[in-house]
Amino acid sequence: MKLSARNRINARVVGVTRGEATANVEMDAGGTRLVASITVEAADELALFEGQEVIAVVKASDVILAVADDPAGG
Amino acid sequence: MKLSARNRINARVVGVTRGEATANVEMDAGGTRLVASITVEAADELALFEGQEVIAVVKASDVILAVADDPAGG
Amino acid sequence: MKLSARNRINARVVGVTRGEATANVEMDAGGTRLVASITVEAADELALFEGQEVIAVVKASDVILAVADDPAGG
Amino acid sequence: MKLSARNRINARVVGVTRGEATANVEMDAGGTRLVASITVEAADELALFEGQEVIAVVKASDVILAVADDPAGG
Amino acid sequence: MKLSARNRINARVVGVTRGEATANVEMDAGGTRLVASITVEAADELALFEGQEVIAVVKASDVILAVADDPAGG
Amino acid sequence: MKLSARNRINARVVGVTRGEATANVEMDAGGTRLVASITVEAADELALFEGQEVIAVVKASDVILAVADDPAGG
Repeated sequence: MKLSARNRINARVVGVTRGEATANVEMDAGGTRLVASITVEAADELALFEGQEVIAVVKASDVILAVADDPAGG
Repeated sequence: MKLSARNRINARVVGVTRGEATANVEMDAGGTRLVASITVEAADELALFEGQEVIAVVKASDVILAVADDPAGG
Repeated sequence: MKLSARNRINARVVGVTRGEATANVEMDAGGTRLVASITVEAADELALFEGQEVIAVVKASDVILAVADDPAGG
Repeated sequence: MKLSARNRINARVVGVTRGEATANVEMDAGGTRLVASITVEAADELALFEGQEVIAVVKASDVILAVADDPAGG
Repeated sequence: MKLSARNRINARVVGVTRGEATANVEMDAGGTRLVASITVEAADELALFEGQEVIAVVKASDVILAVADDPAGG
Repeated sequence: MKLSARNRINARVVGVTRGEATANVEMDAGGTRLVASITVEAADELALFEGQEVIAVVKASDVILAVADDPAGG
């Protein structure tokens, strides 16, 4: 299956915090911490476990850019 | 400034494709390709240039998880 | 009221899973299952009930396209 | 590949409007019109053509519910 | 029509920047500048004009909070 | 830090509803009620309190426009 979403980040599941409706999935992507909020139903269906290899998929229109106020120190 | 957004990925600008309203910013995050679609106005205001250090910021609710159909090969 | 959002899908409420902050609303749209995660406050305000006719509204920029790897079987 | 996204709507491509950065993909899903705004790069990669079968994927947190002001006519 | 979306901000259209696929709508909401990126099709359908009264609608899950690093100056 | 996100609305925290995974933050922006759904982790990290000054940040692509069916009364 090909996806139009431009961002696919390989990561491993570190932990899952479950509420009644939403689950927050904490991941590690080569030292960068990632978090995904998904439905509890999706977390169950994906059978997430610690150490599992997953792909964090993000649409380009959902990425905000931040830059330091003065990166050059000028 | 602190942000509620849980995902902040350090990256470098690789290139910018500008339309009239939208600019797609291609980035490299330690070997992972990222793309952000932002307004042309924002691209101008951030004065993006090739090689610039930026942070790709994504809200946890905008992250989709994908897993291989059978990661264990079973 | 006219909305800029391009996707409006007629559906019926099948069930609601409520947490403290978020409610997941399961719907049926002519045989296609849909799920919306909204605030519990919104679920209360809309007075959702099973069988209720609703419209699932989605912005065009929130739609990801997926295609089979080889739809032509070639 | 399994996705956490809860909404997957089968559709056929009706047309594509291309800008420099963004492409709007118009689809038909059993009589319901759908539109996805994706990057031009993604449109090229998916090799979209009229009549192509695609899946419109939407995260549950990106679905807004609308209900008529007085569905019971009371 | 009632919407589940929790944020509805009254605003006036200040200007529209049109590309081929996307239009950026600049608004004024009581002194706060707002910008919406919508499809050109939606901009045409809404027949947007300068000074027009509109409502900027945003889902609660699309709002990021930012706070100053040290608001108390301590 | 500069952000690409085009909408930054000054507001004050009115209240926080916490679930296990998600917190809904109610705000007042000069008389307009705003709500943000963020992770409980983010709510803790921002140390939100009633009356706190915050900025509600929204990407332009997450803003939907609504207009009255007949604003001119014609």
